[in-house]
Amino acid sequence: MTSQLTATPGHIVAIGGAEDKTSDLEILKQVFALAPVGSHEVAVIATASSIPDQVLPDYEAAFTRLGASRVHALNIQDRKQAADARNVSLIEQSGVIFFTGGDQLRLTNVLGGSATLNAIRERLLASAVVAGTSAGAAALPGTMIYNGNAADALRKGAVNMTSGLGFVDGLIIDSHFLERGRFTRLMEVGASNPEHLGVGLGEDAAVIIHPNRILEAIGPGHVILIDSRDLASSNITELSMGGAVAIENMILHAMVSGHGFDVDARRYLVTDELSALLEDSR
Amino acid sequence: MTSQLTATPGHIVAIGGAEDKTSDLEILKQVFALAPVGSHEVAVIATASSIPDQVLPDYEAAFTRLGASRVHALNIQDRKQAADARNVSLIEQSGVIFFTGGDQLRLTNVLGGSATLNAIRERLLASAVVAGTSAGAAALPGTMIYNGNAADALRKGAVNMTSGLGFVDGLIIDSHFLERGRFTRLMEVGASNPEHLGVGLGEDAAVIIHPNRILEAIGPGHVILIDSRDLASSNITELSMGGAVAIENMILHAMVSGHGFDVDARRYLVTDELSALLEDSR
Repeated sequence: MTSQLTATPGHIVAIGGAEDKTSDLEILKQVFALAPVGSHEVAVIATASSIPDQVLPDYEAAFTRLGASRVHALNIQDRKQAADARNVSLIEQSGVIFFTGGDQLRLTNVLGGSATLNAIRERLLASAVVAGTSAGAAALPGTMIYNGNAADALRKGAVNMTSGLGFVDGLIIDSHFLERGRFTRLMEVGASNPEHLGVGLGEDAAVIIHPNRILEAIGPGHVILIDSRDLASSNITELSMGGAVAIENMILHAMVSGHGFDVDARRYLVTDELSALLEDSR
Repeated sequence: MTSQLTATPGHIVAIGGAEDKTSDLEILKQVFALAPVGSHEVAVIATASSIPDQVLPDYEAAFTRLGASRVHALNIQDRKQAADARNVSLIEQSGVIFFTGGDQLRLTNVLGGSATLNAIRERLLASAVVAGTSAGAAALPGTMIYNGNAADALRKGAVNMTSGLGFVDGLIIDSHFLERGRFTRLMEVGASNPEHLGVGLGEDAAVIIHPNRILEAIGPGHVILIDSRDLASSNITELSMGGAVAIENMILHAMVSGHGFDVDARRYLVTDELSALLEDSR
């Protein structure tokens, strides 16, 4: 069912961008802590970035500081490299696979249908953690946003979407969400199809998608949820392209660290409720 | 009851800023059309602006083009001028009172408790239309936002508020709403007190507040509503100043021209429903 998150043994972590990489490492610490026991190698994929050499060193340093036994900076800039058996092999030995920021369209364009992507999916099934920040977060679900100026969104067709890397279903993830005022993007997405939960990640905020399909907010920032399932009406089908989209009834939540959301039950979880649910699932 | 808009014989129009002043005049035309029969003088108050001489000519030209018999550019830059009997007299003969943009804190600081403000309230009771754009829109209700960076909002205390000009109760109005991504401002306001409806006006969008307390969206832009009345929980009272505000359950609507909202019934109105309700009230 596409309305539910696919249960996977591994954890997924989506980060809103600009996470602390040099000080407390609050979010990256939690990403690393989710790695399976005894599997402390980290693969960092900077395919989204046009400047991978500037992006990779901070992550190598951060994960090394956190106790990674090895950090593999994967060189995947084109589809040939995405098919390379050496990269597949590095994925296979990693307990954490991490996607940096950049342009999410590069991630799907280069990795879509590749041996590397298949290998990452298999690692997730084998309990590895798959994490991404900014563009790397947006690309994690089955459908992703890759363009759309927030000020012009809520105009039919203003938000560009395509299929994502497919690690999780039932969510659409947007990043830099509060900082770039992207509420309108997830509203337009919700009007086009109200089934998927909109997850808007603030900077230095992240959401852990637990195997039991519970979301957990971490980090100092906010995680905004836009739940369109009860959409009562919208004019979107009647509009010409560019027309102003009307929306009647979406539900809005703002999660802070320690709060959560049960996607299938559509239930907001304050700290105690989240702890109890996560405890039950252990 | 502060939960209801105060019924007034006159119409109130709140505009999100950057309305067309030189071409089709779509919004200003509707403002002028709401003037009482035979009362076609317009008072323009540029008190909010630090550059009134640059702001006033466009409005003088626009309202003249629309058929105003006279356009009075009121010179109210300080509290002494706000008490001036000549300004009171110009208000008393006007069927439309229009507040330009600028800084809404100047509006309340200069006009609060003044003879001019009292005269405007009396004109509203006598069926005149009171309209404002940008800062002039934000200042219309009993409570107003006057500062707060959208990217930093949803932090306790990040949005500064004070009492407004008091023409309408039950609403908090924000302007340039989609363009500056101000959803977080109205969310913080709603967490601090869920009673009032948050009205976020996009640029070149406006809302007519009808005497029967029905909102009507006009103009090419969007009017966003954030209804906090069903707020289920928030951590705001437990936080230190600056702490990240959590919000469980607000309702979000996006109105386009011709759509409306019944504030007391909390009911979204599509075109036919709005027309029927406005027809009934005539």
